[in-house]
Amino acid sequence: MDKLIRDNERLDDLERSGLKIIQNPKKFCFGMDAVLLSSFIKVKKNENILDLGTGTGIIPILLTAKTEGEFFTGLEIQEDIADMADRSIKYNGLENKVSIIHGDIKNISSIFRHGCMDVVSSNPPYMKDSHGLKNPEDTLAIARHEIKCNLEDVIKAADFVLKPMGRFYMVHRPNRLIDIIALLRKYKLEPKTMRFIHPFKDKAANMLLIEAIKGAGVWLDVKPALVIYEKPNTYSQELLDIYGY
Amino acid sequence: MDKLIRDNERLDDLERSGLKIIQNPKKFCFGMDAVLLSSFIKVKKNENILDLGTGTGIIPILLTAKTEGEFFTGLEIQEDIADMADRSIKYNGLENKVSIIHGDIKNISSIFRHGCMDVVSSNPPYMKDSHGLKNPEDTLAIARHEIKCNLEDVIKAADFVLKPMGRFYMVHRPNRLIDIIALLRKYKLEPKTMRFIHPFKDKAANMLLIEAIKGAGVWLDVKPALVIYEKPNTYSQELLDIYGY
Repeated sequence: MDKLIRDNERLDDLERSGLKIIQNPKKFCFGMDAVLLSSFIKVKKNENILDLGTGTGIIPILLTAKTEGEFFTGLEIQEDIADMADRSIKYNGLENKVSIIHGDIKNISSIFRHGCMDVVSSNPPYMKDSHGLKNPEDTLAIARHEIKCNLEDVIKAADFVLKPMGRFYMVHRPNRLIDIIALLRKYKLEPKTMRFIHPFKDKAANMLLIEAIKGAGVWLDVKPALVIYEKPNTYSQELLDIYGY
Repeated sequence: MDKLIRDNERLDDLERSGLKIIQNPKKFCFGMDAVLLSSFIKVKKNENILDLGTGTGIIPILLTAKTEGEFFTGLEIQEDIADMADRSIKYNGLENKVSIIHGDIKNISSIFRHGCMDVVSSNPPYMKDSHGLKNPEDTLAIARHEIKCNLEDVIKAADFVLKPMGRFYMVHRPNRLIDIIALLRKYKLEPKTMRFIHPFKDKAANMLLIEAIKGAGVWLDVKPALVIYEKPNTYSQELLDIYGY
């Protein structure tokens, strides 16, 4: 199997169901946000899931272990990253559960049928401003900044593929919550659950998990705050639980 | 001074700067939400403040002690409650700092000049649904349900009286956050700071404090969660600090 791993790549153990993931530390590795999102996403038995901007494929891979979903698809615009994610799927023998597609969120309607998904997830680029970037074609820049797609492209794509009452899950920055909500409303994806993540309990939130349901009525639950560090260098018990320790 | 207090009314000590407030427990008493809002509101020296739906006058009264604002106005639609608030102002000798006006938020433009306020606050009725209420003219029902005004009326009134870059502060229910944000955006009041209040740290939020600035740019801070009870029957230290103990 080792030929699946290329130069500069490494194989990381996900510490869950024996799953591994191929990453390239010179390009981009998944972060805590992806792990928190994967634990926030609810997938029911036999549901179909699409992950928009899947990167390394971390979210579909983790969801195969954490849920009983029928089939998981990851869409990724960067060809080399999509190829690496595809090799992670093969390495884990998940070809019958997960498919990685190299394609552009903005062309969603030429890739997927309208209303074909029960669940859509995304850990999109957070940063609006891409001015002054030294290298906007850099893999990491594309993952972090709205270069290839913006927030509206992601939400519009989610709306396109979701069934009525289908669920959209996203991790993002709280600083952009107002834009997120305005765009979700524009596409009739009603926010139903939010969770704010604070590095310490007395610090402002730096991540946001949000669940929106297509065509649902107005009612929002704001779940308990998730605190990452109990004290400096010591993770909270809840974070350790999410990581499965 | 005792003639200021009527039958069924009582005089409560606010435990701050010797301030007292007249309340009628058969009608409506202020709650923790008003106290939390008053501690969340920022008022700078010489600023003018309007409290929409002031009830007992609790918010302007507390703000006289907590801030260096120039003048505080409370607008209240219920004549008997406005009269009671007015007597609290007299009882505290605050006639030169606070004025209570009996009037309707929906007629704001006939009561105040456009753009005359630096700060607007409101602890409005939370509940959208007033169907099936036994007595919709009941004082408590009017304070809690959107009978005399709805959320949009409050936000529209705030927008009318605020100066450019003026600040709007509100306490409300997190369940209605999406409507709140959509309406604030509609009136160009950009949410800048939010704080969620949880009864216990592992429970969903049941109150929300929000600061919006008229005409400001897009950027939101979600402050640390405020937890009311450290454990059953024991307030958290932060709550005790807010109450000034």
